[in-house]
Amino acid sequence: MAPAGGPGAKKGILERLENGEVVVGDGSFLLTLEKRGYVKAGLWTPEAVVEYPNAVRQLHMEFLRAGSNVMQTFTFSASEDNMESKYFEHAEEAMWAVEVLKALGKPVAATMCIGPDGDMHGVSPGECAVKLVKAGAAIVGVNCRFGPSTSLKTMKLMKAGLQAAGSKAHLMVQSLGFHTPDCGKGGFVDLPEYPFGLEPRAATRWDIQKYAREAYKLGVRYIGGCCGFEPYHIRAIAEELAPERGFWPPASDKHGSWGSSLNMHTKPWIRARARREYWENLLPASGRPFCPSLSQPDV
Amino acid sequence: MAPAGGPGAKKGILERLENGEVVVGDGSFLLTLEKRGYVKAGLWTPEAVVEYPNAVRQLHMEFLRAGSNVMQTFTFSASEDNMESKYFEHAEEAMWAVEVLKALGKPVAATMCIGPDGDMHGVSPGECAVKLVKAGAAIVGVNCRFGPSTSLKTMKLMKAGLQAAGSKAHLMVQSLGFHTPDCGKGGFVDLPEYPFGLEPRAATRWDIQKYAREAYKLGVRYIGGCCGFEPYHIRAIAEELAPERGFWPPASDKHGSWGSSLNMHTKPWIRARARREYWENLLPASGRPFCPSLSQPDV
Amino acid sequence: MAPAGGPGAKKGILERLENGEVVVGDGSFLLTLEKRGYVKAGLWTPEAVVEYPNAVRQLHMEFLRAGSNVMQTFTFSASEDNMESKYFEHAEEAMWAVEVLKALGKPVAATMCIGPDGDMHGVSPGECAVKLVKAGAAIVGVNCRFGPSTSLKTMKLMKAGLQAAGSKAHLMVQSLGFHTPDCGKGGFVDLPEYPFGLEPRAATRWDIQKYAREAYKLGVRYIGGCCGFEPYHIRAIAEELAPERGFWPPASDKHGSWGSSLNMHTKPWIRARARREYWENLLPASGRPFCPSLSQPDV
Amino acid sequence: MAPAGGPGAKKGILERLENGEVVVGDGSFLLTLEKRGYVKAGLWTPEAVVEYPNAVRQLHMEFLRAGSNVMQTFTFSASEDNMESKYFEHAEEAMWAVEVLKALGKPVAATMCIGPDGDMHGVSPGECAVKLVKAGAAIVGVNCRFGPSTSLKTMKLMKAGLQAAGSKAHLMVQSLGFHTPDCGKGGFVDLPEYPFGLEPRAATRWDIQKYAREAYKLGVRYIGGCCGFEPYHIRAIAEELAPERGFWPPASDKHGSWGSSLNMHTKPWIRARARREYWENLLPASGRPFCPSLSQPDV
Repeated sequence: MAPAGGPGAKKGILERLENGEVVVGDGSFLLTLEKRGYVKAGLWTPEAVVEYPNAVRQLHMEFLRAGSNVMQTFTFSASEDNMESKYFEHAEEAMWAVEVLKALGKPVAATMCIGPDGDMHGVSPGECAVKLVKAGAAIVGVNCRFGPSTSLKTMKLMKAGLQAAGSKAHLMVQSLGFHTPDCGKGGFVDLPEYPFGLEPRAATRWDIQKYAREAYKLGVRYIGGCCGFEPYHIRAIAEELAPERGFWPPASDKHGSWGSSLNMHTKPWIRARARREYWENLLPASGRPFCPSLSQPDV
Repeated sequence: MAPAGGPGAKKGILERLENGEVVVGDGSFLLTLEKRGYVKAGLWTPEAVVEYPNAVRQLHMEFLRAGSNVMQTFTFSASEDNMESKYFEHAEEAMWAVEVLKALGKPVAATMCIGPDGDMHGVSPGECAVKLVKAGAAIVGVNCRFGPSTSLKTMKLMKAGLQAAGSKAHLMVQSLGFHTPDCGKGGFVDLPEYPFGLEPRAATRWDIQKYAREAYKLGVRYIGGCCGFEPYHIRAIAEELAPERGFWPPASDKHGSWGSSLNMHTKPWIRARARREYWENLLPASGRPFCPSLSQPDV
Repeated sequence: MAPAGGPGAKKGILERLENGEVVVGDGSFLLTLEKRGYVKAGLWTPEAVVEYPNAVRQLHMEFLRAGSNVMQTFTFSASEDNMESKYFEHAEEAMWAVEVLKALGKPVAATMCIGPDGDMHGVSPGECAVKLVKAGAAIVGVNCRFGPSTSLKTMKLMKAGLQAAGSKAHLMVQSLGFHTPDCGKGGFVDLPEYPFGLEPRAATRWDIQKYAREAYKLGVRYIGGCCGFEPYHIRAIAEELAPERGFWPPASDKHGSWGSSLNMHTKPWIRARARREYWENLLPASGRPFCPSLSQPDV
Repeated sequence: MAPAGGPGAKKGILERLENGEVVVGDGSFLLTLEKRGYVKAGLWTPEAVVEYPNAVRQLHMEFLRAGSNVMQTFTFSASEDNMESKYFEHAEEAMWAVEVLKALGKPVAATMCIGPDGDMHGVSPGECAVKLVKAGAAIVGVNCRFGPSTSLKTMKLMKAGLQAAGSKAHLMVQSLGFHTPDCGKGGFVDLPEYPFGLEPRAATRWDIQKYAREAYKLGVRYIGGCCGFEPYHIRAIAEELAPERGFWPPASDKHGSWGSSLNMHTKPWIRARARREYWENLLPASGRPFCPSLSQPDV
């Protein structure tokens, strides 16, 4: 039997959040399936669902094994118990969507794809959050477009905005699996590497454990990922927050926490890497000395 | 019907090579399945084959869709028509293996996991290749441990060694999907990033197209990948060599060559990326200004 | 005879600025003389003036040849016609100094060593500038602690603050000769490289030409340098603004503008560097692949 | 009175080397005087000697204060007691020069501006050294074109070549003050940064202490610098080898060894830098995240 609160338990997302549980989201479908050969970059249309259902199902399985509590679909997210509107660049559009969903009588999660500088009309993250709550959203946050630390900066501003307005909502973050400290307002799509040269920016599992911990400390309780989040990144969230959640994700049967699975390696210098301090402090090299560390966004 | 020489055609690898065809290998099983949650890093044992056959089958499917002509297994490679011995660091051991396989009456492919500096006893790549051919190998080359450009350097030395000795064999390369210009003799396992911090070193599809073209020019006709090679990397080989092979891989139905699928994007600066020159010349940033470009190997 | 407005002309700095002239400041004394062997790092005391007058005089000569209009001394700056107070981290202290100097009946230039985040008590650059003008400063700006582009960001904020307050003053900038995008509020002294590992941050002459042009466009008319500004950096300011000033600095007799002196080189690929576009667009490598691009300040 | 062997002692260079003393060379004249405004880049002609004798004399003084035992001139090096031929890219030309000088009855130092790959005709460093000694050189080595660690690699090969041939000579190294791991055979002039964008490659004093120690360990006893070597770099050689030489250079009166002069700084985190381990292990950032670490040479 699955432990209480574990993946087997049947509960809605909002119910879990109200209970004080941590909800672990899932990760990247479009970019991940593109790399597996089932989605075409550019328009990013989700016909893989009908064309290659096995490939899609397999990826769903991987995210569930990794510890995700949710199963989003490619298209408009509509699970049985809540509705999420996302990918909005403008606060006003997001509000309209929330109002429509709200009218359907469902609890609503609304995320925007904005960074610390706010939406395209200059509405700050704090104001955006307040507007969404006023429109009826029970869960607000950000998804996509910005990397882990940038997304958390935005969440901090959202939280401060809500507090200042005496407004209340659950917080949700779904960062990119890529580091984007050099993004402008438009996020990673404006970086010259988008979408076929993002590899050197990919987050390690340790980057994501740090992200999960910081999100948790900030009060965010729905923690997931977006483009670039592979199953092992989701597992990293679930492992970091296993103490709080009270259980480990299934896929941890294939993962030694903090590199501990290296402790049987035949080479002593590799065995020496089987510890938390090693991976927490590693500054991983790019192997690309002819490339810069940061890029100028195109806009 | 599949075109002549296409993936549907039933032919052995050696037969194909004798025919002058290009054989596209497959990619990374252990590292890729580790990220999907089915293999444990460290001992890298392949029990996923029996534990999670769907996940393994799915990855096989992806490599085939990507254009691979072969289906390796996790364990000791033994397809119906040839046998490959690999992961040898020492020329002598590799020779013994080749002799055993040869005695079984099968054509033998023998690859070593060495770099340009040769094996652990100082036997140069050229000498290694000659020894393997003398022992009976029909196909010789390298697999794993070193990135694309380093592996090709080794192949160049193997080829020169064979030529100097008047020896002949088909050439085979299965590079890492990671850039490792900073490796020592032991390859990427000695880099501090192995195995959980290799992300910033991951090759783009364009890096792999370049690798495939250079391998081809060098006379290598079995071109594949090893750790870090995802399905889209294999597709990049198959696309680069589509003119020579006379057909495109199935997964190209979800890939616009050289970024052409971006030509319908709503943002003009992203449409401007829908061309070969753009991706060929891109120097992708790591998004990690606090990290170095190269590392010192531990040994 | 020197051209009108040229180095030979005897005029006070304020008089020049009132006339609409550009005043080119001088550069680094303490750090430059440290590297020449005449000043001790740490307390940075200026006893070289009495101990090694020839070395100090020589550096003065170099800055004058490079096109500087001024001759600061090491100690408290007191030329015949104006007084400058500098190295203040706090707006309040700077105001006291300005008031004292003002009481002496001299026109006063007041610079603070602050960045875009303002002084140590959180007073913004705009507010600082307004306070200094109210206290009697005729020229306000920044010196030291931050690199060229950071210093210009601060100047922009100072200018905006003055405009918003309906306040007026001449603007003055004396940036470091080092790039410091990673500085915190305390500036470069808090970077781990200070003061003996700053070499990789040193500005090129082209960086300084860009700085001079941007400062000019912003309305700054006293443009000089601080720590790390060598004579050729001052010459770069004087060359960039030669059209506006109407004359070239003496040391340009030993400098082909924009690399033109390379046009006689025997190697054609070096001759190809004798043009403005080349140097303007060069992204110079550090030759240090094991080092990061940015550092975390100690505070 | 100066200590025995100190700068005051009148002895020839060869005599010192025969005595087992360390000779500290001087540094960069042309590049340093270019930055001071007295030499024009490109043809690098030395008319500053007659035009600006004070500036040249001042730089000589600085190198002597820094601990140099020699006074080279700009032109062909001809001190009273020995003759040095240098800047040869071809072993053959260098041999002719040595023979001519030898015929004048003077002990001869011959350095070539080659890297580990040898001269332009493919003559290896070991062979070059042997040829020069056969032609009559008493001191052989390298000067210019390559950075500290590359120059020492070349010296290692020269030494091995001499040993293999049973040949004997004193060893001499005069590296660039720039890091050039990315150089081709032609050295730093082929790098895109030459000569006006080399700043980020400049060596720190700590790099040079390491260079001096490694040169000494290798058996090199004439240790100096070439382009990019400022007075404080020469002092770093003299300080590193002060125990072996038995005296400190005059300019050490303005230098706390290993940063010790910071121990009175008011900020505790800067005081914490007043120790050897700190500077020995520092990986200095470039402050240039948009730039690569390495460049491709033009040839």
